[in-house]
Amino acid sequence: MSSSDIFIGETIGTAVLILLGGGVCAAVTFKRSKAYNAGWLAIAFGWGFAVLSGAYLSSGVSGAHLNPAVTIGLAIQGGTKWSNVPLYLASQLLGAMIGAVLVWITYYGQFRAHLTDPEVIAAQPVEEGMVDQRTAPKAGPVLGIFSTGPEIRNAAQNLATEIIATVVLVLVILTQGLNAGGDGLGVLGALITALLVVGIGLSLGGPTGYAINPVRDLGPRIVHSLLPLPNKGGSDWAYAWIPVAGPLIGGAIAGGIYNLAFA
Amino acid sequence: MSSSDIFIGETIGTAVLILLGGGVCAAVTFKRSKAYNAGWLAIAFGWGFAVLSGAYLSSGVSGAHLNPAVTIGLAIQGGTKWSNVPLYLASQLLGAMIGAVLVWITYYGQFRAHLTDPEVIAAQPVEEGMVDQRTAPKAGPVLGIFSTGPEIRNAAQNLATEIIATVVLVLVILTQGLNAGGDGLGVLGALITALLVVGIGLSLGGPTGYAINPVRDLGPRIVHSLLPLPNKGGSDWAYAWIPVAGPLIGGAIAGGIYNLAFA
Amino acid sequence: MSSSDIFIGETIGTAVLILLGGGVCAAVTFKRSKAYNAGWLAIAFGWGFAVLSGAYLSSGVSGAHLNPAVTIGLAIQGGTKWSNVPLYLASQLLGAMIGAVLVWITYYGQFRAHLTDPEVIAAQPVEEGMVDQRTAPKAGPVLGIFSTGPEIRNAAQNLATEIIATVVLVLVILTQGLNAGGDGLGVLGALITALLVVGIGLSLGGPTGYAINPVRDLGPRIVHSLLPLPNKGGSDWAYAWIPVAGPLIGGAIAGGIYNLAFA
Amino acid sequence: MSSSDIFIGETIGTAVLILLGGGVCAAVTFKRSKAYNAGWLAIAFGWGFAVLSGAYLSSGVSGAHLNPAVTIGLAIQGGTKWSNVPLYLASQLLGAMIGAVLVWITYYGQFRAHLTDPEVIAAQPVEEGMVDQRTAPKAGPVLGIFSTGPEIRNAAQNLATEIIATVVLVLVILTQGLNAGGDGLGVLGALITALLVVGIGLSLGGPTGYAINPVRDLGPRIVHSLLPLPNKGGSDWAYAWIPVAGPLIGGAIAGGIYNLAFA
Repeated sequence: MSSSDIFIGETIGTAVLILLGGGVCAAVTFKRSKAYNAGWLAIAFGWGFAVLSGAYLSSGVSGAHLNPAVTIGLAIQGGTKWSNVPLYLASQLLGAMIGAVLVWITYYGQFRAHLTDPEVIAAQPVEEGMVDQRTAPKAGPVLGIFSTGPEIRNAAQNLATEIIATVVLVLVILTQGLNAGGDGLGVLGALITALLVVGIGLSLGGPTGYAINPVRDLGPRIVHSLLPLPNKGGSDWAYAWIPVAGPLIGGAIAGGIYNLAFA
Repeated sequence: MSSSDIFIGETIGTAVLILLGGGVCAAVTFKRSKAYNAGWLAIAFGWGFAVLSGAYLSSGVSGAHLNPAVTIGLAIQGGTKWSNVPLYLASQLLGAMIGAVLVWITYYGQFRAHLTDPEVIAAQPVEEGMVDQRTAPKAGPVLGIFSTGPEIRNAAQNLATEIIATVVLVLVILTQGLNAGGDGLGVLGALITALLVVGIGLSLGGPTGYAINPVRDLGPRIVHSLLPLPNKGGSDWAYAWIPVAGPLIGGAIAGGIYNLAFA
Repeated sequence: MSSSDIFIGETIGTAVLILLGGGVCAAVTFKRSKAYNAGWLAIAFGWGFAVLSGAYLSSGVSGAHLNPAVTIGLAIQGGTKWSNVPLYLASQLLGAMIGAVLVWITYYGQFRAHLTDPEVIAAQPVEEGMVDQRTAPKAGPVLGIFSTGPEIRNAAQNLATEIIATVVLVLVILTQGLNAGGDGLGVLGALITALLVVGIGLSLGGPTGYAINPVRDLGPRIVHSLLPLPNKGGSDWAYAWIPVAGPLIGGAIAGGIYNLAFA
Repeated sequence: MSSSDIFIGETIGTAVLILLGGGVCAAVTFKRSKAYNAGWLAIAFGWGFAVLSGAYLSSGVSGAHLNPAVTIGLAIQGGTKWSNVPLYLASQLLGAMIGAVLVWITYYGQFRAHLTDPEVIAAQPVEEGMVDQRTAPKAGPVLGIFSTGPEIRNAAQNLATEIIATVVLVLVILTQGLNAGGDGLGVLGALITALLVVGIGLSLGGPTGYAINPVRDLGPRIVHSLLPLPNKGGSDWAYAWIPVAGPLIGGAIAGGIYNLAFA
């Protein structure tokens, strides 16, 4: 796999992942959207099919990691060379930022209508610099389109939740090669992974909104902090390390479990 | 592939696509339907499985394009001969019109009950000739069974949304041949495409209702303008160019991205 | 395929189909059920996965018809011998009746609690013998667990709806052999058919509740008329011919379309 | 298959099954969860994808039983050696207990907030020792995250419901080898089984919450009785035998039906 394949596959694949994933958050958040208030099941399926699209698109090009936790897990397992890891991660972060910008373009008018609505402005969380870690409100609706935020703000639990959910995700991906017929990789692998992401969202997404992917959270959060959105509120940088550290730790643990138990 | 195969596969496949796709819009719109008010998730799955049915039916016959944006993308990629494009497009338009008529037959009594309900008549949008592009209401419930309409009427954003959503759709379809084992075409390809369409609906359908297919919008709109429905209101021809132009541009861009990045 | 295989596969497969299909209707109908009021999407997925279970179970044994409309369509296409048709149909009807009895056992306490609830008794439709075809209410909630009923009672439209929906179902099944790799039969074929049934339910089920299978309606209706349920109301025999005739006509039309257009 | 493979595959696979399955129950139960009140369809899909994850992970290692009813059915069929059965069952029970602990860690803050909420405390069911079998309330919301409980408490019906639902589950799994191409085992088999579990939940889960797996109920119930949760109420041991006995009987019946009818 050439550097160019990795760059193209991961950038485009992650951009599509975040475009569709952030898109479903926008779709259910905005009043002037046909999917307004469509519920958590719609969000979970939306993110799952976002994974399907990004993974299917890039699986024949870059192997469809789209997630630093997957890349780390595969490197520990031996399925990816460590020397390729930096390029994977950089491409994924770039792709995630492109995807977040595309969500903004797709829902441009909805963002504008929402952020100039007096009711919404009054309900905005206070600025991030003033936030007390334990009592701060969860991510306001516009930040929630870009990044995750906890329902109950508790660093230890939030980190544990992200680690556990990511271990499940990466361990399933690492065991694909073990399956009968070896057809786990490729098309069916993308489908299984997508449905697994629906499942993780439904089952383990309740406390933190399941980042389970460092760039899925960090890339759009950077875009949120840069976009010229009126009344957008803070980007909650105080929380930002958890959805980066948790998934990285989870990916590494999954790689270790694989090597100890399944290899 | 013979002309006759293209004609039969695309006409029947697109008719089934629109019958099931328009059908789910009817099913959730009419009070005297068992699916009344079943929500956006039902609509998104309904359209996805409409694609599955039409694509599965025609994939062994005409290759299951069912969408001029797919045909254009494949022609640019080299997967379809340019000389076949006119026949594909004409068959797709004919199929879409047949599908829309079948929706009307299937929900005949529901249309009649709905359109003679005094509350519904009072809520009808004004006649299309009187519409100011920026303030016009979204498609009324009966037109919404046939064609798409924007939540916020803004030609630039509406066009951009349709282009972006179509690029995702067509790019995924164009990369099917790259997947491990080459099993992307055929049955699994139809399934992946169908679930992708569910995902596009959930994630990118909020602003415009995701035409992502010129004939999916134009064919039923023509049928709406021709059917003898009382109190049906205008067919919103002022908007009609966007769900035609956007998907065509999106399909061409996807073909170009494929040739530049994946070929 | 031996007579014994046909008998075993079709009886057990259809029993499972109706157990799960009737089961989801019971699950959403009864107040003392965990799925109470789960909505049309739950019903559509429930019936789809009912088809998956029954078809998967019997596909290696009897070919998983489970539906006289499919058997007729296959006989016209040449995929099944006409001499086997009577055994297929009889086994399917027997299986459907067994499935309906199993629904009753599974929800025994719920039936009893529901049918002795004074509110429910007051809301029962009048006796079937007194029904005016055009003004009769739709199937009451207990009959609705067994059989289908129209939202708007109009024999011509109801028949047309059942015919159209069945043509889609059977035509997709008949074209399985045309798909790339021929893997349409077997496991993936069962999955595609199941998701198609979800789609038909969402899109075309609104007016009549999509029997699309004569024994799916007739078998449980017979069981409803025989079971010793207090206050159960009539079995609406006046409507019963439509969900038998419509699917049979639809299956035959699908066979004809296949022979004319696809063979 | 070595003892070590069985132990690792079944323990980790069942832990993931219960982590995601119990997780979705927690996700919809707790007010401070993003999935609060997401409904029965979310629960059914959550459990289905829990099966997918656990089965996919372990299918290449231990054959992915994850359920004593499946192990018993396979032993009767001859697909598993009787001498391996004790190890399968012990590993499954251990995995189920680990999974339940992981649910508690994932939702730690939500458990604490919920169990110290005065409204919730007032609504707790009475202590299990005082329970009259026929009038006792269904499992309180916290026990419901761990174990199943009936909507109507009637030992005969509850047992019958669990037996019937388990027969369907195990019979479908036992017939996988019969399917065309033999690709029923492995990846597609895991997917079909997962969707079947969604279907069983939607259709047959209404009366008892579909344990259909002895350790799925018993393992978490033991954990519930051991965890230091304030105001957690009783563990309803009076009911605990039904979701153990029912699925075991169902698995044995399915094995017998297979040997009589399909072998």
